[in-house]
Amino acid sequence: MHLLLTNCNTTEAMTKDIVAGAQEAASPGTTVTGLTPAWGPESAEGWLDSYLSAAAVLDLLRGHRELYDAVVLAGFGEHGREGARELLDVPVVDITEAAAHLACLLGRRYGVVTTLDRTRGQIEDSLHTAGVARNCAAVVGTGFSVLDLADVKERTSAAFLAAARQAREAGAEVLVLGCAGMTGLQRLLGRELDMPVVDGVAAAVRLAESLVGLGLTTSRAGSYAKPLAKRRDWGPPGA
Amino acid sequence: MHLLLTNCNTTEAMTKDIVAGAQEAASPGTTVTGLTPAWGPESAEGWLDSYLSAAAVLDLLRGHRELYDAVVLAGFGEHGREGARELLDVPVVDITEAAAHLACLLGRRYGVVTTLDRTRGQIEDSLHTAGVARNCAAVVGTGFSVLDLADVKERTSAAFLAAARQAREAGAEVLVLGCAGMTGLQRLLGRELDMPVVDGVAAAVRLAESLVGLGLTTSRAGSYAKPLAKRRDWGPPGA
Amino acid sequence: MHLLLTNCNTTEAMTKDIVAGAQEAASPGTTVTGLTPAWGPESAEGWLDSYLSAAAVLDLLRGHRELYDAVVLAGFGEHGREGARELLDVPVVDITEAAAHLACLLGRRYGVVTTLDRTRGQIEDSLHTAGVARNCAAVVGTGFSVLDLADVKERTSAAFLAAARQAREAGAEVLVLGCAGMTGLQRLLGRELDMPVVDGVAAAVRLAESLVGLGLTTSRAGSYAKPLAKRRDWGPPGA
Amino acid sequence: MHLLLTNCNTTEAMTKDIVAGAQEAASPGTTVTGLTPAWGPESAEGWLDSYLSAAAVLDLLRGHRELYDAVVLAGFGEHGREGARELLDVPVVDITEAAAHLACLLGRRYGVVTTLDRTRGQIEDSLHTAGVARNCAAVVGTGFSVLDLADVKERTSAAFLAAARQAREAGAEVLVLGCAGMTGLQRLLGRELDMPVVDGVAAAVRLAESLVGLGLTTSRAGSYAKPLAKRRDWGPPGA
Amino acid sequence: MHLLLTNCNTTEAMTKDIVAGAQEAASPGTTVTGLTPAWGPESAEGWLDSYLSAAAVLDLLRGHRELYDAVVLAGFGEHGREGARELLDVPVVDITEAAAHLACLLGRRYGVVTTLDRTRGQIEDSLHTAGVARNCAAVVGTGFSVLDLADVKERTSAAFLAAARQAREAGAEVLVLGCAGMTGLQRLLGRELDMPVVDGVAAAVRLAESLVGLGLTTSRAGSYAKPLAKRRDWGPPGA
Amino acid sequence: MHLLLTNCNTTEAMTKDIVAGAQEAASPGTTVTGLTPAWGPESAEGWLDSYLSAAAVLDLLRGHRELYDAVVLAGFGEHGREGARELLDVPVVDITEAAAHLACLLGRRYGVVTTLDRTRGQIEDSLHTAGVARNCAAVVGTGFSVLDLADVKERTSAAFLAAARQAREAGAEVLVLGCAGMTGLQRLLGRELDMPVVDGVAAAVRLAESLVGLGLTTSRAGSYAKPLAKRRDWGPPGA
Repeated sequence: MHLLLTNCNTTEAMTKDIVAGAQEAASPGTTVTGLTPAWGPESAEGWLDSYLSAAAVLDLLRGHRELYDAVVLAGFGEHGREGARELLDVPVVDITEAAAHLACLLGRRYGVVTTLDRTRGQIEDSLHTAGVARNCAAVVGTGFSVLDLADVKERTSAAFLAAARQAREAGAEVLVLGCAGMTGLQRLLGRELDMPVVDGVAAAVRLAESLVGLGLTTSRAGSYAKPLAKRRDWGPPGA
Repeated sequence: MHLLLTNCNTTEAMTKDIVAGAQEAASPGTTVTGLTPAWGPESAEGWLDSYLSAAAVLDLLRGHRELYDAVVLAGFGEHGREGARELLDVPVVDITEAAAHLACLLGRRYGVVTTLDRTRGQIEDSLHTAGVARNCAAVVGTGFSVLDLADVKERTSAAFLAAARQAREAGAEVLVLGCAGMTGLQRLLGRELDMPVVDGVAAAVRLAESLVGLGLTTSRAGSYAKPLAKRRDWGPPGA
Repeated sequence: MHLLLTNCNTTEAMTKDIVAGAQEAASPGTTVTGLTPAWGPESAEGWLDSYLSAAAVLDLLRGHRELYDAVVLAGFGEHGREGARELLDVPVVDITEAAAHLACLLGRRYGVVTTLDRTRGQIEDSLHTAGVARNCAAVVGTGFSVLDLADVKERTSAAFLAAARQAREAGAEVLVLGCAGMTGLQRLLGRELDMPVVDGVAAAVRLAESLVGLGLTTSRAGSYAKPLAKRRDWGPPGA
Repeated sequence: MHLLLTNCNTTEAMTKDIVAGAQEAASPGTTVTGLTPAWGPESAEGWLDSYLSAAAVLDLLRGHRELYDAVVLAGFGEHGREGARELLDVPVVDITEAAAHLACLLGRRYGVVTTLDRTRGQIEDSLHTAGVARNCAAVVGTGFSVLDLADVKERTSAAFLAAARQAREAGAEVLVLGCAGMTGLQRLLGRELDMPVVDGVAAAVRLAESLVGLGLTTSRAGSYAKPLAKRRDWGPPGA
Repeated sequence: MHLLLTNCNTTEAMTKDIVAGAQEAASPGTTVTGLTPAWGPESAEGWLDSYLSAAAVLDLLRGHRELYDAVVLAGFGEHGREGARELLDVPVVDITEAAAHLACLLGRRYGVVTTLDRTRGQIEDSLHTAGVARNCAAVVGTGFSVLDLADVKERTSAAFLAAARQAREAGAEVLVLGCAGMTGLQRLLGRELDMPVVDGVAAAVRLAESLVGLGLTTSRAGSYAKPLAKRRDWGPPGA
Repeated sequence: MHLLLTNCNTTEAMTKDIVAGAQEAASPGTTVTGLTPAWGPESAEGWLDSYLSAAAVLDLLRGHRELYDAVVLAGFGEHGREGARELLDVPVVDITEAAAHLACLLGRRYGVVTTLDRTRGQIEDSLHTAGVARNCAAVVGTGFSVLDLADVKERTSAAFLAAARQAREAGAEVLVLGCAGMTGLQRLLGRELDMPVVDGVAAAVRLAESLVGLGLTTSRAGSYAKPLAKRRDWGPPGA
């Protein structure tokens, strides 16, 4: 089985990290190719970035000609998944919803620990429209930006641990990592708090495999019908 | 007072129509400038179009250098409003939420009549995240596309009338026009069904004026903080 | 345009203050007449007062013979708005819902700061039935009664500031003043917390103007049909 | 035990009917005194009537000097119960909530059949604020007014039967009579549809007895604190 | 009138205590017979215990041949009530829902104080499916197990008092005892916090009496239809 | 990987069928062992059956001594999953929630088609407590019992097709088979309606594999803590 994974930002190093995590999480026989958008934000933090990212990721997907069995959208809380479902004939799994789906199977309430506080609203909305917000006890920010995560391991660890404790206090029995590319944190939180910690990338890889394995793909009956044929310009004139 | 109105698609004729309606709805002393995105879909119908449109509209707004007091986003059910709120220092009003806000003041439940069935989900989600979904009794599609609306007046009238009756049956006491540029339909539905009919463009113009008049603008305390400084590429390389 | 504003209590001085605020918030060309109920409570705090006030305000409205374009009901969290909608052919806007409608346009969540804790439930219920409770993060009381507000400026300021901080802590990005006649507090809170602060009276004036300007009025199709002709005694026999 | 029952309108004949039903439903040893408001509407249908009725009923209660153990408010869907709870030291049970409470014990979903369609919204709101709306499958109107019920037995029977079938279709497993004084209808619906039918007056009598029997009364800790001492005028000057 | 009360565990002493409380709460003329399951857990704490208890209690009920008018299920938060409703022709009242029903009549929000934290989720789910969760402000655990309650009066009192204060802080105006057999605690909490305290057993007895008195019983129209005739083995082979 | 699958009833032929479907759905390298409860109902239809089944399945699981990596609970809408999570150290996936989780990834709303109408309530409650009810558009019954399904293929096909159309009419874009052992129906519905059809057993197998593959298991931090040591009797004395 072959999965396509799209980063939500233009930072290639991050794509590489995420693909490594995805490959590690995949079943034997599954290969994962990572794609980095040719345009968009260098990191997605907030709605402006998220909408820019959504268009860039959809542009990336529509232009990709090689064959693949399913797509993993690796932007936590980012927009775009419904558009990808319209566009493609293969299953599309977003890491936000994926993490929540598996978390629901592991405890009665889950909590999300994420980067900047400003992204909490987006994540809540994304979980809501995905239909899995009900068991979410809290979305807690750490104050660290996406690009910080690469650098300041020690301070981020402490901040994520504090956020996780706050989520547990709010009723979470399972933790969800609200950002891609946090493998180290996953181990730390699990060990320190003795709670299951779900990484969205890993969850999405397994869910994508599940859908492919069962021969299931996106419904065309309603919301996710094929896009109508029409003129669409994917970027400023002159591009 | 000077308002900027952005169409959600690249069809200039539609921008012109919408601006005419907006100008008619505006208070004396308010001028409305319409902007058409330089890229994006020729009409927005479905999530793929909506995300493409959101990025194009945000690109349009960030590039616009003239002064204005508020922005009206004239895409019914389309994405982007939260991004515009982050980007700009003036109030931003989306026609989807605007119509619902006024409708809530006119009856206990409202209903939306719109174009293709495929857009119903987006509209429901948009009302929900705007915080005004609770009094929405139904979102009913007519099967006509956005571009159809210009042409086939008679058949569209019948279809919208049928959709409006269905909304009323579902409990709606007020109707919301789920598309920009439908002035004729507004009169027809109001007359035939003896119910108030709210046009989102008109509603948004008045709400934008209200916010400006009261000196209110978007909160920076939380979700809609200013975008972080970072590298963002607004379109494919070479653009 | 001419607006009628009804105070919810019998304290004329309060009517005068509220009308002054309303007039200040109104567009050029709008005049505001304030009415004080001939009976009812001297201040409305709690359900008993609120129901008494609702009847007195409706009695006031049914007896008022001069022409006006819309009504503003200036009792925060008080009952009566649906009755006024049945009674009158012009638009009716309640300051509770009005503040919430505008607040939703300015941030993802809003919070209400109000007087006595006992009124919190009424405000929550009023926002809920108006269809705008979803984005309300908190309703916080200060422990001051309505009539206290006139006297003890310094202590009330501190209490409202503390309540506003509590609302922000609970997720509010916008503040709503949960009482009429608080112009000074509005400036204080906005300045100290750097958040938009919405005054219900000002919001209601602008929304009433908007409805009138667009030729919209209450739906008669359903809940707010005209009252049936029947015998109604507005007060004890002998009155 | 002695219960006070207040009619919500000024029609004495209706008070008498309702008290007869209440007395029949009461336990041995319980006496029921019916009170008719000295003012208000001759029947309560819609919000205007309901708010007028609420003030008149509260006026009635504050003036009643004889001793009693609990109060039954016999207006289905009418306002006022929270005010009575503030005012009185004995338990207050409203027939709307009472019927719903018992109905929840008898089936998974209940439906309300009532008089005019215009009262449906009030009933829904009343159930919601009472905390028992969740299991309500539908509130169905029959088109008959309250005063019609006395006269046109045959046609009302057919209409209520049709409404009850509609409620069952919507998922109701138990029926609630959405009006006081319908004993005959209760038997008819129960027999024809083979479903339990709950009369709010009977339910409220038994719940009031239960609270009194257990020594429970309204909480003063929060919403229903005693009304503050202040000037209140209960009716127009000269009364 | 004759009520059957089933304990949810096999501890006879607890049955005795609960029956004593039930008998004390009952109206004159009502007798209460307590039954202890022949199998199941010695105390019910958590889902495993609850499901085991549900089957044992249903087995107990199906085997009981004497006549009775209604059943009280005396396991707070435990499963089984819907099954008993299918099985029996008489009304079935569960102490969890019963307490919530009466609490809703006494204040705007109620809170539950219970034993181990692990049971909170079950209680929340039970209130939700019973349709009375909306006004529940909090379910607070004390860390004491069911069997502890018999022994360590002083420490449990302090813990329940602390839990009750926490519930009040969260908005509760009425307290519900989240365990059977706590008569002493009821008095203590009521006295110390000056709030009404509802005991589920007492509430259920009175509600059962009310249903019987009004001739109401479980609906067979839908969810609680009579069980189909089929082979069912109530326990391991050889039993 | 080795999965244990428990049937919810005592009908061995059904276990065999379900295991065959599970094995077919499993990844290469996964083996599935089916277990039939030693006691309980021969088919589970309604709450009485469901609670009996839950206890029997938990008894089966606690007594099973061989090693396995995860458990699939193959009773659609049946109780027990939370108890199994307390009892076992390996992941537990219930086919009800599993089908819903995958369905959410394939369309905006899903619908469940099931056997007898009486089971609809249980399924709705089960989806709700699992946290995945929000995107469920309808649960539709066919009037066929579980055991009928084996016999009357032609009539059941027609009934399921009609139910599926009703679900689609209610907004479902994806279908969920609300019963185990319906492989033939899955193909029929998918082909006739051109919608994805999710079988809970297949979904649960893949989700169980996913959790095991990612090293995730049930949280012990809160609701699903290990059962306390205590006396529990699993069946009537003499067993």
